[in-house]
Amino acid sequence: MFILVNLKAYSVDPVEIAEAAASVEGGTTDARIAIAPQSPALAAVAETGVETWGQHVSGVEPGSHTGSTLATAVVNAGATGTLLNHSECRLTLDEIDRAIDTARQAGLESLVCANTPSQIVAVTALGPDAVAVEPPELIGSGIPVSQADPEIVTDAVAAAAGVDPDVPVLCGAGISDGEDVAAARELGAEGVLLASGVAKADDPAAVLRDLVSF
Amino acid sequence: MFILVNLKAYSVDPVEIAEAAASVEGGTTDARIAIAPQSPALAAVAETGVETWGQHVSGVEPGSHTGSTLATAVVNAGATGTLLNHSECRLTLDEIDRAIDTARQAGLESLVCANTPSQIVAVTALGPDAVAVEPPELIGSGIPVSQADPEIVTDAVAAAAGVDPDVPVLCGAGISDGEDVAAARELGAEGVLLASGVAKADDPAAVLRDLVSF
Amino acid sequence: MFILVNLKAYSVDPVEIAEAAASVEGGTTDARIAIAPQSPALAAVAETGVETWGQHVSGVEPGSHTGSTLATAVVNAGATGTLLNHSECRLTLDEIDRAIDTARQAGLESLVCANTPSQIVAVTALGPDAVAVEPPELIGSGIPVSQADPEIVTDAVAAAAGVDPDVPVLCGAGISDGEDVAAARELGAEGVLLASGVAKADDPAAVLRDLVSF
Amino acid sequence: MFILVNLKAYSVDPVEIAEAAASVEGGTTDARIAIAPQSPALAAVAETGVETWGQHVSGVEPGSHTGSTLATAVVNAGATGTLLNHSECRLTLDEIDRAIDTARQAGLESLVCANTPSQIVAVTALGPDAVAVEPPELIGSGIPVSQADPEIVTDAVAAAAGVDPDVPVLCGAGISDGEDVAAARELGAEGVLLASGVAKADDPAAVLRDLVSF
Repeated sequence: MFILVNLKAYSVDPVEIAEAAASVEGGTTDARIAIAPQSPALAAVAETGVETWGQHVSGVEPGSHTGSTLATAVVNAGATGTLLNHSECRLTLDEIDRAIDTARQAGLESLVCANTPSQIVAVTALGPDAVAVEPPELIGSGIPVSQADPEIVTDAVAAAAGVDPDVPVLCGAGISDGEDVAAARELGAEGVLLASGVAKADDPAAVLRDLVSF
Repeated sequence: MFILVNLKAYSVDPVEIAEAAASVEGGTTDARIAIAPQSPALAAVAETGVETWGQHVSGVEPGSHTGSTLATAVVNAGATGTLLNHSECRLTLDEIDRAIDTARQAGLESLVCANTPSQIVAVTALGPDAVAVEPPELIGSGIPVSQADPEIVTDAVAAAAGVDPDVPVLCGAGISDGEDVAAARELGAEGVLLASGVAKADDPAAVLRDLVSF
Repeated sequence: MFILVNLKAYSVDPVEIAEAAASVEGGTTDARIAIAPQSPALAAVAETGVETWGQHVSGVEPGSHTGSTLATAVVNAGATGTLLNHSECRLTLDEIDRAIDTARQAGLESLVCANTPSQIVAVTALGPDAVAVEPPELIGSGIPVSQADPEIVTDAVAAAAGVDPDVPVLCGAGISDGEDVAAARELGAEGVLLASGVAKADDPAAVLRDLVSF
Repeated sequence: MFILVNLKAYSVDPVEIAEAAASVEGGTTDARIAIAPQSPALAAVAETGVETWGQHVSGVEPGSHTGSTLATAVVNAGATGTLLNHSECRLTLDEIDRAIDTARQAGLESLVCANTPSQIVAVTALGPDAVAVEPPELIGSGIPVSQADPEIVTDAVAAAAGVDPDVPVLCGAGISDGEDVAAARELGAEGVLLASGVAKADDPAAVLRDLVSF
């Protein structure tokens, strides 16, 4: 089960959360935890030893692109994967396609977000390493998608499998504890995406321990 | 004289160029050199001891913004300044305004790019620490703006002074050697912006030494 | 006093509102009323005889730009002016600059929106025919800017005059009746921008008659 | 065979071309010709009696969206279809999804563009009325896609059929005469998208007659 913690642009210390996550890893479960900080913090997060992900990479080729973050730069900072097309960072279809390609060439795992089962078909067709379904209306709601709309998860799992049965599906929105993780797994998800539930917790390590206790 | 080297998304090793720049600094001139890498490389560049700049920061408040790079994150990685509104990373007027503010609050110097003297008036009115005039048609042309269009520099200097005489004006586009820097200074510029001239040079340190020899 | 009614993307019949506006015009006041519908409705609105404005035009040159609306196309449909940089349609500084130029070349009046007095300086420096200050937090609030924040209007008027005393300043946000228009005029505004107050009124003609009765 | 002529933002008289197209229609072939002008010209083009298409519609719900063109406004101007996601007007995956839905609700046919067979799978999964494959490197090249890269057309046809065999596939880029149309049909395309070949022709009616003579 893959637990991906998106630190967004929260006012938090990414290294502190990364160290909390690093302390939780190595348990007896099959859980895999990764932390996705803002890009200037990738190197510092990677130095803690935790699995480190980008929140976004551009799909442009190297060249005259001021202000872009390329997959190679993210890899050089120590990251091993990247989110793409998060609902707060929507890309055009063509950008998603190119970003998946440049991520692969750079040796970076890609996880593409989408809102609905038909969008999951669409992004799976572009050949990412994984996809995630996140109904935007549930993001930050505190209501786990596995409870509010369990069918969207099972439908997304079926939708991805129809295109490529080897592409794992994660789910996001409203996940906050180990029960939600277990429910997501029941529905066929191979991981969860969360953000404030860990990032804004008083004790992120405790929350992470609970999340992997499913 | 401020020499700002924008590494854009070039396939180069930012640390190598940063070390070259660090070796040039400390000379007898009044030159100040800064390196602006992609954001995942900010920390590694800052560790060389060279002055480190962002290529862009978002003006949003901390919060749920996946894929954004905030001024605070850039500062935490060791940077002390940031470009804004580069011709390859255009912002809305309102974003420029907010990004200048969030940069200031984070203790980050801001340098806002513009194409023409009237745009220089516009961006100077928003209160940045510095502005730069870069005619887009000359970027990467190899023809220094001080030669191709010297009046745009003197007009930009006059334009900024009309709004706030304390805001220094840099110029960019086509700068490649110490003579270009000297010419820019003659026209009233207090610095230059360059990119491929240093980043893609066989010997960046030699180019930088020439640039500061004006 | 210029009364510009922005129909946004409301579910309303633009021709019905245009006819209401046309019936109000020709009164004894100095009021000038214009209607800004979605671009496919420009021709139908212009046919009512009311002054017709675009909500936006692109600043690109004629050519391969699918989905853009150019100033020439807006003029050919019968419009005589256009909004630019509305808070719901933010443009980069460079786009504002180019759109003002292409509007002028096409014989289209331009009115550029901004949030604050310093942004009013910025947009006035680009040479539009008029500018408008609209604090975004008041848009659709029902509280007139002349009441909620009268200084932003007087400051905007002073800011524009500092750059070019011939550029009239309009104000927007929260305007709903003739008293608000009179208050805006007192503060130095030469017009008002409104939207739902007219567009969603049961009797738009009655609201417009009240607006011009100041 | 569907011939869709995209007038882009060319400096041409859309009504003149629409009249040329209207004069060609009604022949003995099964060809169907539509003209897609800039949105302010939709009503004037529709008045010629030719089938009229939008170049783009926004997928937002009616409301406070200044500068947007909604499907309902395009229908009210007399159009019956719309392009979406043209390579010059790229949309996010979520915008494509919503724009297809709002077009359908408004009774507007949707035709979604894509660059590659895998992107054709992606957009077909979102349920449009038709899709079009246009390799961007061939747009405006004068080399018909059916000659430069015939496999991309047959692959796109197969890709769409794999998702929904009822969704017709058009092809674009480099089409200029009846032979190109015939070649496209041979490859399985049910229509072609063209632009400058008709819009910038000395005699658009002659070109259109040739196009439908396949």
